[in-house]
Amino acid sequence: MKIATLGPEGTFSHEAVLRYNSKAGILFTETVMDAFEEVADGKADFGIVPIENSIAGTVGQTLDYLMKFELKIKAEELVPISHNLSGFGKISDIKVLYLHPQTYEQCELFIKENLPKAEIIQTSSNGKSAEIIAKSKDKAKASIIPKIAADIYKLKILKKDVQDNRFNITRFFVIGHEDSKKTGYDRTSIAVYPQVDRPGLLHEMLGEFANRKINLTKIESRPSKGKLGDYIFYIDFQGHKSEKHVAEALKKLEETAFVTVLGSYPRKY
Amino acid sequence: MKIATLGPEGTFSHEAVLRYNSKAGILFTETVMDAFEEVADGKADFGIVPIENSIAGTVGQTLDYLMKFELKIKAEELVPISHNLSGFGKISDIKVLYLHPQTYEQCELFIKENLPKAEIIQTSSNGKSAEIIAKSKDKAKASIIPKIAADIYKLKILKKDVQDNRFNITRFFVIGHEDSKKTGYDRTSIAVYPQVDRPGLLHEMLGEFANRKINLTKIESRPSKGKLGDYIFYIDFQGHKSEKHVAEALKKLEETAFVTVLGSYPRKY
Repeated sequence: MKIATLGPEGTFSHEAVLRYNSKAGILFTETVMDAFEEVADGKADFGIVPIENSIAGTVGQTLDYLMKFELKIKAEELVPISHNLSGFGKISDIKVLYLHPQTYEQCELFIKENLPKAEIIQTSSNGKSAEIIAKSKDKAKASIIPKIAADIYKLKILKKDVQDNRFNITRFFVIGHEDSKKTGYDRTSIAVYPQVDRPGLLHEMLGEFANRKINLTKIESRPSKGKLGDYIFYIDFQGHKSEKHVAEALKKLEETAFVTVLGSYPRKY
Repeated sequence: MKIATLGPEGTFSHEAVLRYNSKAGILFTETVMDAFEEVADGKADFGIVPIENSIAGTVGQTLDYLMKFELKIKAEELVPISHNLSGFGKISDIKVLYLHPQTYEQCELFIKENLPKAEIIQTSSNGKSAEIIAKSKDKAKASIIPKIAADIYKLKILKKDVQDNRFNITRFFVIGHEDSKKTGYDRTSIAVYPQVDRPGLLHEMLGEFANRKINLTKIESRPSKGKLGDYIFYIDFQGHKSEKHVAEALKKLEETAFVTVLGSYPRKY
């Protein structure tokens, strides 16, 4: 089995793959979009992509790619996030920080308090941040990375657990050409693009779930890429698309909206 | 009047300030958070901060800062977005692209098709991207920036309008210590943090708006920073907090949730 994920080695995505299947072959990609492409093109069996972090929120692009590539969510995986200031020198030596944008978001207060003058150069992944520091061998450069990356690239951890919130988890989706069979403890993700515009429509749509005692676990608006204020709603709820009350709710939604089932899969929380 | 906004000169935030009040003094900040801080500390009268883009979606951190700093939304401003590949050399010379993360999101297809091998170094703002290229004078380095930045930093536009979607608008909030008086064509933004957890609660809450014919224009989930799956909902709707039916809806919401009015302000669309 081959799994495509954001590389290089040492990203939280890499860790998510190891948690999902420690024996799978891994195809590291340069961007999250590339991971989708490798699966769509059949060069990998599955992809593992970040969908949301308990502090920084949803990775909106992953939602966009789910629609664009027409792949299905097969599973979800959770990775606890711990960030570590890493490099070669002392904290007082640091003049430049190489950071992934989501890492910056998750460590912003630490950085503003402890390294307010550091220049921040953003990178395409935490693995990339570590790789750059390892190659530079420069004490003035540091990064904030997962422990797995510090180990792989042999960087010294200057301060551990520098994330602003102690409890920090990232949720990943396992994507493929099919979703999963019903287990009895499932979640379903859908995209809903309303085709009429009237006050109360969103309320009516959510009523299809509430009336059937289906518990929504998330709702997100993403721009339709059309005019400002025109949204596609991404909704997660408890249940499997094959269950009768879920299938009924989806059918009712289709009367006023384009509905895409992104996948039904076993719940991890 | 002094307005704090993301700098340096040449950002879309800079352009938003010029559109809002071309005679205001401008205090350029290094991050969006700093713009909030300057207003909170009284060093600027207002701040202008990006809240959402019609392609890339909501700037989640701006929502977080609205809660954290307890400032009010006084107005909204719209800026059409046009991105321009800019530098000194020819497109075939480019080996490194300096980009703001939102700019990358908005030009991703263009970059993947035209500059698939370019190294991408992300920056803290489009103005910063332009400044770096201007200082480097290196033909192998380029950036994708607003026209205003190419003009200020005297960069050559190598290809204009490289954003993936032709129609691309960013919405900004003007923030200050007070929101605005009723004009009859207003919008209100609120944050709702439910204090009970039961199926159908979100549906019930939206019912308070639907029953009063209040038109929701946006709903967004942001992590509460607590456990995964625990959200604060950000809702925009048409109307002013001083209107009777709006005040009633807000009062009903408060029975099951913490409700924060982020501001009522004149609608621009």
